[in-house]
Amino acid sequence: MTVEILCVGTELLLGNVVNTNAAYLAQKCADLGLSCYYQGVVGDNRERLTEAVKLAMSRSDILILSGGLGPTEDDLTKETVASLMGRELMMDEGSRQKIASYFEERGIEATENNWKQALIPEGALILENHNGTAPGMIVKNLDTHVVLLPGPPAELIPMFEESVAPYLSGLQPGVIFSRTVKLCGVPESRVETQIKDLIDAQSNPTIATYAKTGEVHIRVTANAESEKEAKKLIKPVVKELKTRFGYDIYSTEEEVSLEQAVVDLLLANKLTVTCAESCTGGMLSARLINIPGVSEVYKCGYVTYSNKAKRRILGVKKGTLDKYGAVSSQTAGEMAKGAASQAKADVAMAVTGLAGPDGGTEEKPVGLVYIACSVKGKVTVMEFHFQGNREKIRESATTAALMLMRRCMLEYFSKVTFGEQ
Amino acid sequence: MTVEILCVGTELLLGNVVNTNAAYLAQKCADLGLSCYYQGVVGDNRERLTEAVKLAMSRSDILILSGGLGPTEDDLTKETVASLMGRELMMDEGSRQKIASYFEERGIEATENNWKQALIPEGALILENHNGTAPGMIVKNLDTHVVLLPGPPAELIPMFEESVAPYLSGLQPGVIFSRTVKLCGVPESRVETQIKDLIDAQSNPTIATYAKTGEVHIRVTANAESEKEAKKLIKPVVKELKTRFGYDIYSTEEEVSLEQAVVDLLLANKLTVTCAESCTGGMLSARLINIPGVSEVYKCGYVTYSNKAKRRILGVKKGTLDKYGAVSSQTAGEMAKGAASQAKADVAMAVTGLAGPDGGTEEKPVGLVYIACSVKGKVTVMEFHFQGNREKIRESATTAALMLMRRCMLEYFSKVTFGEQ
Repeated sequence: MTVEILCVGTELLLGNVVNTNAAYLAQKCADLGLSCYYQGVVGDNRERLTEAVKLAMSRSDILILSGGLGPTEDDLTKETVASLMGRELMMDEGSRQKIASYFEERGIEATENNWKQALIPEGALILENHNGTAPGMIVKNLDTHVVLLPGPPAELIPMFEESVAPYLSGLQPGVIFSRTVKLCGVPESRVETQIKDLIDAQSNPTIATYAKTGEVHIRVTANAESEKEAKKLIKPVVKELKTRFGYDIYSTEEEVSLEQAVVDLLLANKLTVTCAESCTGGMLSARLINIPGVSEVYKCGYVTYSNKAKRRILGVKKGTLDKYGAVSSQTAGEMAKGAASQAKADVAMAVTGLAGPDGGTEEKPVGLVYIACSVKGKVTVMEFHFQGNREKIRESATTAALMLMRRCMLEYFSKVTFGEQ
Repeated sequence: MTVEILCVGTELLLGNVVNTNAAYLAQKCADLGLSCYYQGVVGDNRERLTEAVKLAMSRSDILILSGGLGPTEDDLTKETVASLMGRELMMDEGSRQKIASYFEERGIEATENNWKQALIPEGALILENHNGTAPGMIVKNLDTHVVLLPGPPAELIPMFEESVAPYLSGLQPGVIFSRTVKLCGVPESRVETQIKDLIDAQSNPTIATYAKTGEVHIRVTANAESEKEAKKLIKPVVKELKTRFGYDIYSTEEEVSLEQAVVDLLLANKLTVTCAESCTGGMLSARLINIPGVSEVYKCGYVTYSNKAKRRILGVKKGTLDKYGAVSSQTAGEMAKGAASQAKADVAMAVTGLAGPDGGTEEKPVGLVYIACSVKGKVTVMEFHFQGNREKIRESATTAALMLMRRCMLEYFSKVTFGEQ
């Protein structure tokens, strides 16, 4: 079946906001095995909205609209769809009551136009909104299913997960099921080369790669009679991927981020951690601390951007800085050792590099970063060359530090050996 | 004039990437005074691409296409536009030579299909690509200007700034000029209320507000005979905004971020700075260190997530933690004082709060954050209540810390007094 995504909102046409809804909906639809050939954006204008909805309904089986369900006069999505599909708008008592109690709970007076949100095209399926006042809805005729969702991602996403995904998966024969194999420390081109045969031979399950900074995700999606059958189809592919990529895979769980995997390893091995950061300036600590429960393992962090701070706080030797410079394997190693002893932590990470835009030389160009990891006194230092602007280089360095930290812990505790970078 | 944006790429239809190009192009076109009524996304499919380009050309004066200029068989944008406009594709010698030297410089062999990128529809204006091998182009007939840009933002953005913006501004009568007034510490709703009369009365210049985390940007855009005239139209509006918002405006320069404004203040007043972070875990230091040249003022930073670290590194008193808790005005204040004395810095920032998802109580709910700023020993603490998930709360706290830091420095040095938050 084909699906089309149409986002409604002047703020998108003006470029005030980036259209993350379209990317979210597109990915979810791809996961559900639906083919998306068109995405569109149109403003809150009756004529142009009518034209866009009509065109989409003429060429796609499913149309997902986001936005334009608000209480103001500008919000026209529901009215336009109802009129195109020949439906009256009716006051839905359930939705009206929910809006009433929403305002009551917050001690605010509902204004007249708030009740407009309880108007529903007759015969529509109503989708509850637990995070706002605008209910979603699905209106269908013989040819087309039209899904109307509120624009704010905090309302759209839970509504899609809860109500729309089950509805859409019901329209498809069988069940669609995905698993994501997440890798770090392997460039995308190498991942693609290593699984080219699998991608070329794919039919069911399908295999797709997604690149993120310093990571590659491989999504395996199967279509089968039942979830059990789908999982059975996926299993040998995931197993094959595990054989090919081994410990470069940090997780096969959708919700596990690289920092989560790293914190899980720390927790499992009862290891405490500290970070000493120069060019990343706190980004590594910040990512670790985004994981709830990290307090059990995270001791403290040092942002030592200046040479003085590297010496005073971490005890990096003046001779080392003079001889090798702040951006050197030697300094990175001493930073990690110093942080470990200062913080009395089992694992210590250190990052020092040239994030630019100035300060690069032929010998030490912008993008050169040294990352050190000390696990119980065993220090490993790696050299990296990153591309991009200052922010991008720092982000890449942070991800690489998480990758190295994971690798060093695995090598130390599991006697795993990683190949060449 | 009307403009339509059409992004070409299967990766967008699959939701693998978020369409930041559309937002970028939309904002730039709005700045140029062009009306954008439609945005679209279509895949690398000849039939559907033809249909989409045809429709766009029939209803818009300018069509901007991004993507599909690559060397592979899948890349069809140029071919489709040329065929629809009745043009032959010709080998452009200049583009061919640039591709040749691009590969030569990198010591790579160009493959046969790389030369495809030098094929240009006859009569097209060629736009140089300094960041890749695919030249951009503009093809026009009597009714429509079709602009073809490469998909990667690192190629599209500089090409737009350098070649497309001047071309498009040439199509418009007169000159379009914008200025952005950037505020922090004022909620968007209050900004809108305070300038409702200006927005209602707007014609030339126009006024639009853009909300970011903890910030509001007001963009003032004028259309006039010359840049000088446009600036003259903008000046009184910016002056009026300055009168209304005073020191809540941190900059009127496009490229100055809040952290840049803060670092500029530190540099101007020859003040050094340190940060002690609990829930933000390094994010505040990381943002300051994203500014090149910060090394002159940034002394060092401490990530003190645990109570132990707050005591050991910053000297927060056990009694304070026991009596008021880690998330309290008192602890924030002692963290700032401790950091200032440890780092011997003029300005010290401290952040402590509940980022969730667990750990909230009725008295201290998730989202409660205390931020302290010490300027030469004078300590100010503010209490905040942020909404959203863990990441969003931490991001909001970081921006609020920058806002408070700026405010305290201004109050200390310029005897400026800010109103209530």
